[in-house]
Amino acid sequence: MSGTILVVARGWNIEPWVSRLAAALPGHRIIAGDREGEYPGPDSELAEVDYLLAWKPSATILGRLPNLKLVSSFGAGVDHLFASGALPDVAIVRIVDPDLTARMSEYVAWQCLHHLRRGFEYNRQQTARIWDDLPQPAAREVTVGIMGLGVLGADAAGVLGRIGFEVRGWSRTPKALDGVKCFADADGLDAFLGGTDILVVLVPLTKDTRGLVDRALLQRLRRGGALGGPVLINAARGGVHVEADVIAALADGTLLGASLDVFAKEPLPPESPLWGCDNLVITPHVAAVSDPAALSGQLAAQIRAFERGEPLRNRVDRSRGY
Amino acid sequence: MSGTILVVARGWNIEPWVSRLAAALPGHRIIAGDREGEYPGPDSELAEVDYLLAWKPSATILGRLPNLKLVSSFGAGVDHLFASGALPDVAIVRIVDPDLTARMSEYVAWQCLHHLRRGFEYNRQQTARIWDDLPQPAAREVTVGIMGLGVLGADAAGVLGRIGFEVRGWSRTPKALDGVKCFADADGLDAFLGGTDILVVLVPLTKDTRGLVDRALLQRLRRGGALGGPVLINAARGGVHVEADVIAALADGTLLGASLDVFAKEPLPPESPLWGCDNLVITPHVAAVSDPAALSGQLAAQIRAFERGEPLRNRVDRSRGY
Repeated sequence: MSGTILVVARGWNIEPWVSRLAAALPGHRIIAGDREGEYPGPDSELAEVDYLLAWKPSATILGRLPNLKLVSSFGAGVDHLFASGALPDVAIVRIVDPDLTARMSEYVAWQCLHHLRRGFEYNRQQTARIWDDLPQPAAREVTVGIMGLGVLGADAAGVLGRIGFEVRGWSRTPKALDGVKCFADADGLDAFLGGTDILVVLVPLTKDTRGLVDRALLQRLRRGGALGGPVLINAARGGVHVEADVIAALADGTLLGASLDVFAKEPLPPESPLWGCDNLVITPHVAAVSDPAALSGQLAAQIRAFERGEPLRNRVDRSRGY
Repeated sequence: MSGTILVVARGWNIEPWVSRLAAALPGHRIIAGDREGEYPGPDSELAEVDYLLAWKPSATILGRLPNLKLVSSFGAGVDHLFASGALPDVAIVRIVDPDLTARMSEYVAWQCLHHLRRGFEYNRQQTARIWDDLPQPAAREVTVGIMGLGVLGADAAGVLGRIGFEVRGWSRTPKALDGVKCFADADGLDAFLGGTDILVVLVPLTKDTRGLVDRALLQRLRRGGALGGPVLINAARGGVHVEADVIAALADGTLLGASLDVFAKEPLPPESPLWGCDNLVITPHVAAVSDPAALSGQLAAQIRAFERGEPLRNRVDRSRGY
């Protein structure tokens, strides 16, 4: 079999992906978009595209693919594919992979430990050459609440539990996980939040989760826990939190601290007031980076499965949005 | 039974320990030293002391306890008891406790993740409002080498393995740990260091380990690993590393980064050049703080066991030094 593959990844160096995919899919033609997420060639070339592998493709490109059969996201999320409304009605898959999952759990553990172990305060003390030990709860005295109990949330829960944190989780539909107190749906949200010291957001961005983490939600987190106040960690999508509400919550003490890896607008503009917030860790959407060496094989395998008429893995339900 | 207990902990607030010990050991008399590690009362009072619970006691006090029967450290280490040479020849115990162990593993995981996830660089970028993703190995591509495979080292290995790091260990005598490549003695040190990207020091301070981590040892760590250079984390005792050598290694790139929780002189003096080092995390000997609520029970139980003639737990071998 053979087909034409378009790879587009806005802001990424696409070359390591193209070379690996070419090696894994001999006989296929691979064409690549530019760093703006556009394809500079003529429509006639795009008319031949069978498969799209994409990260934040432009709406213009999505509207120029009349023969598209299959789309894969380069990551775990697919909101960037739906954003423009121009995505043809074809099969969509996303990446679920141990490498990507492990990297996300690294980030979540790193940031939970940073807040638990008073990283901001010890960093300020170090800068001022101050030697002063601060009151320190153990992880077992602090509850991490994970919103979103898919593959990423479940693995993060396992790592955090091994470190010693008390872990609870919330999901849209009821789940059961060893060692994790699980809550579900709108009905369970109040109880979930009321016992959470560190809120870790790992839900997909959908119409239901857009703007979910707003001022009212942050005010429902536990106050007076062992940390001295609630903490927000968002490693999912920027659209899930309301940026102005997070800024206000950090300023007035509703939040003790926060870690944001994702933002409504990426790259985060230099003029964003978030850069000026105290007790906030900003990383440039790197919580779980997609590694070509680890993930190209899965992308190629999906195309081969499609060509053989075999079932696809990790299919996206368009109505659910993930 | 009843006896007199002297509690001395230099630099600590001793009150939470005294109140808990008094409740746990009715009928015993408890007297307390001051924050300088001294006892301001007369020799006649010290002559009645049966049990000493201590953290960095002065040599003066140790020489004024003619009827001492048992000494317990307030922590996992006992080097502070031997330091002056004035400790009477009585039974010595130290603390081995799940709370203390878990806190140490928190610190080790926190610092390993900080270096893995390029915390210094992202922090500098945040300060400069720079959005730029940096090359990022996964934990599985990075080897943490733990020196010291006692209770603390073994638990840290378990946590780091669950996070995804490749873990190896080195100890004075041969050990076997699931999922950990183990090396022992001087013969195994070269092979251990040559495959280590992040060196975690968790050995007791003894005559054999004093100054062990010097320039020559740091130069034997793996170069050209996935992190881009070796990292040192010392959460054991400051006497194990040679401060001037660590400073030089950070300055000339022998070390990519370091985390030090312990120092030859504590508190670390404001004029120490360590405060001015780049890519160094300094914390004030708080990697694993002794929590009175978690540990007072063990201290009281040891005294009761001694009074009943039962075996003591976690006895220190004076000849070994731990």
